[in-house]
Amino acid sequence: MSTTESHPELDRLDEAIGAIWNQILTHPLAKELTQSGLGADRRLYALYIFQVYHYASHTARNQALVGVNLANVDTQYQKYCFEHALEETGHELMALHDLRALGLSLEEPRRDVPRPLPATELLIAYLYFVSTQGRPVSRLGYSYWAERSYDFIRPVITSLQSKMSLASGSMSFFFAHSKVDEKHADDVRAILLRVCKSPEDWAAVRRTAEVTLQLTAQILEQVYGEYKKLRDGHDTEYALLQKLAPPTEP
Amino acid sequence: MSTTESHPELDRLDEAIGAIWNQILTHPLAKELTQSGLGADRRLYALYIFQVYHYASHTARNQALVGVNLANVDTQYQKYCFEHALEETGHELMALHDLRALGLSLEEPRRDVPRPLPATELLIAYLYFVSTQGRPVSRLGYSYWAERSYDFIRPVITSLQSKMSLASGSMSFFFAHSKVDEKHADDVRAILLRVCKSPEDWAAVRRTAEVTLQLTAQILEQVYGEYKKLRDGHDTEYALLQKLAPPTEP
Amino acid sequence: MSTTESHPELDRLDEAIGAIWNQILTHPLAKELTQSGLGADRRLYALYIFQVYHYASHTARNQALVGVNLANVDTQYQKYCFEHALEETGHELMALHDLRALGLSLEEPRRDVPRPLPATELLIAYLYFVSTQGRPVSRLGYSYWAERSYDFIRPVITSLQSKMSLASGSMSFFFAHSKVDEKHADDVRAILLRVCKSPEDWAAVRRTAEVTLQLTAQILEQVYGEYKKLRDGHDTEYALLQKLAPPTEP
Amino acid sequence: MSTTESHPELDRLDEAIGAIWNQILTHPLAKELTQSGLGADRRLYALYIFQVYHYASHTARNQALVGVNLANVDTQYQKYCFEHALEETGHELMALHDLRALGLSLEEPRRDVPRPLPATELLIAYLYFVSTQGRPVSRLGYSYWAERSYDFIRPVITSLQSKMSLASGSMSFFFAHSKVDEKHADDVRAILLRVCKSPEDWAAVRRTAEVTLQLTAQILEQVYGEYKKLRDGHDTEYALLQKLAPPTEP
Repeated sequence: MSTTESHPELDRLDEAIGAIWNQILTHPLAKELTQSGLGADRRLYALYIFQVYHYASHTARNQALVGVNLANVDTQYQKYCFEHALEETGHELMALHDLRALGLSLEEPRRDVPRPLPATELLIAYLYFVSTQGRPVSRLGYSYWAERSYDFIRPVITSLQSKMSLASGSMSFFFAHSKVDEKHADDVRAILLRVCKSPEDWAAVRRTAEVTLQLTAQILEQVYGEYKKLRDGHDTEYALLQKLAPPTEP
Repeated sequence: MSTTESHPELDRLDEAIGAIWNQILTHPLAKELTQSGLGADRRLYALYIFQVYHYASHTARNQALVGVNLANVDTQYQKYCFEHALEETGHELMALHDLRALGLSLEEPRRDVPRPLPATELLIAYLYFVSTQGRPVSRLGYSYWAERSYDFIRPVITSLQSKMSLASGSMSFFFAHSKVDEKHADDVRAILLRVCKSPEDWAAVRRTAEVTLQLTAQILEQVYGEYKKLRDGHDTEYALLQKLAPPTEP
Repeated sequence: MSTTESHPELDRLDEAIGAIWNQILTHPLAKELTQSGLGADRRLYALYIFQVYHYASHTARNQALVGVNLANVDTQYQKYCFEHALEETGHELMALHDLRALGLSLEEPRRDVPRPLPATELLIAYLYFVSTQGRPVSRLGYSYWAERSYDFIRPVITSLQSKMSLASGSMSFFFAHSKVDEKHADDVRAILLRVCKSPEDWAAVRRTAEVTLQLTAQILEQVYGEYKKLRDGHDTEYALLQKLAPPTEP
Repeated sequence: MSTTESHPELDRLDEAIGAIWNQILTHPLAKELTQSGLGADRRLYALYIFQVYHYASHTARNQALVGVNLANVDTQYQKYCFEHALEETGHELMALHDLRALGLSLEEPRRDVPRPLPATELLIAYLYFVSTQGRPVSRLGYSYWAERSYDFIRPVITSLQSKMSLASGSMSFFFAHSKVDEKHADDVRAILLRVCKSPEDWAAVRRTAEVTLQLTAQILEQVYGEYKKLRDGHDTEYALLQKLAPPTEP
């Protein structure tokens, strides 16, 4: 089946995802990020990259589990799962590299990286659940929006990069990803159209898409909440980020 | 590290594996297979291919689980696991094809394929155990001998092929494998030398190699035992193979 | 260690939990439930019991997994896990009984029970994650508040029972639970004090308590959201509840 | 259903198990154990108890996993699983106690206990496999013979106890077990008759019974093989047992 052909269930999926993106991009935080000085504070960005580090440590693993799942009996789809797991492997190291590029030492990540924020942990937990207990097709709902997300967030990233004066090489997670994701987005579309066989399958995909994108929105809010603790000098497990605080103006 | 360089632990592994191969190849069954009319009986061969079908249905899955394992923190090795899982995916379909090429219908494999023999089930069970609970390096002990096994069994296969008058295309599992396995054997050697860091790691690899090769020998014996039940008209779950019985001589 | 003795970490845990209960109980929905006609609408109650049915189908399972976890090497705690799993087994049948007592047929639960709401699925997913990948102690954070929750919700339940004119026997899940939970609450306290050995252990317990109680609050909100869809005649997977709609007044 | 009532499938199961016990008890090793001086050598006994230590560390865990299994939808049977897991928890500590009673220090079991022998590892692996991937009923085939095994082995144990001059308190694993197992044997019989609903279920139970009892026979042979290495001064991972060697006669 052609990967560019339209399909009413794909339209419905796009619509559901678009509605949540719209919420995210019109959130006051999004505006503040790009329009105020907030975006220049590397602590906020680093907080987010720590979350990326955490979930990226599990992405390849839960992706592979969909292929391991005995309920997945479609050889093509199994191959898709292992191939994409292969391509996602080690992306947490890009996040780590980007954090170190900011000046954080993190010599021993297992010891030095603070725990994920609650929403990040929920995203990780949910993807394991969906990969092992859901319909094999379910996890594609996550891949579907994730592989297309750079279209939505590229303007924000570009704006932040300039505000923080960071080289592209110090934002490797974003820039490496945005290149490969065009091909991936087509792959996901093709496999979705192949594997989804019933309205229940599509409903499962939509559910995963909505839950995981909403969790991503929650991660952003919790990152901001943690940032405010840092900024206001409150207790936080991310105190190691204070060394990235901007110089206080006179 | 070069993949052709010698290493005392590899020598020890080779020796342990060689000793078991020697037992297998000097077993009366091996001689009988190649020297008597036994090898011409397609029921014996089909019994074995059914076992291949069963364990091959799990090979990619348990291989991937080594990459999923949180104790596996070596990105290179994780990639190896997913890449090899990808390459092993669907090989049970070759076994199924070969069984159908013999004239078995097997329309609905989940319904029509008899249960694995006990030793086959033990091999499957052990590989899952090793992949999830052993040291991440352990499963390489299986890959190490499995990827090299065609050197040992090619003469037997060739002899059987001629005795059974089967086209190579009807023995796709063996012939497709023997081609790719040369590259794989080098990959396993390289990753073993990279990932094994302690005598305990090498001992774990040796353990897996020995246990799984000995289980393979047990599979062969159980295949022969089941064959004798078929030949002698006893009850067996593999009665569907009687249609492959050679014509009785006058 | 005595189970009534005070402990600063327990105080901190109580405080964290109390803060979230306070949010829940002062939420406009809580007020509306007990003070308006809303509480009399059995559709709202049934929607919630369906969520109970779903998560209770997994409670014993994920509780047992903490005992299965190889990182759990404390025999006392393992016994606690299996004993509590035993006591939680089959509680989903109480929820099913209560739903049937409302007049829903649900002959074949796997076919007739609608999917859990997203927050319910997240709660289930998170408890599996915590039970298999977290510190073995983590899941106690859930048990700790859950076993005490009847103190907080009893007034609401009592009010709803009277508004809906339901016999106690038709609300078996709540009434059976509130009896056993006093003993359980003491058990959790004792095992917490035994198993928590470091600030990281207590932080893990607090994290689980907070995340799972907040998810419970989200379940309540999503139940209310789904109820409004029902009431306003919108599309919902819970349309089977329309037969419980109160008679429209003239 | 009464637990003493006869059932043709139970008879068939008894027969299959009896045949393997017969092989074990007429094996030359069995005779030698009770009739020669061999039985007096505590190294042989200790080797076996180490295997008990290993598999008993997993018994409760894989038993509980049958209750965790989502394919297990029989509440009675789930309860059986958690209750029996509870009763099996910590039995590895009895084995450890018995090993220490022989004079072995084993301060830090994870460090000081040698690896299980291969057949012991296979038994552990197979029970995990059966508990998670087999029919939920399968694992009962193991419990069925295991709970009755003391009838078969009591004479051997009694003979060994006298030859080794060990107090019953130093053989706690055997003596504690033989007491509780009469009740358990009845429980297994009752649950088997409840849960087995098809010939395939009974075949699965028989398969597990046969495979696990045969693995137990293999454990005995490997224990004897390792013992001979010890006796003859060869390399073995169980060299710590040399301190239990009997005094050499002049």
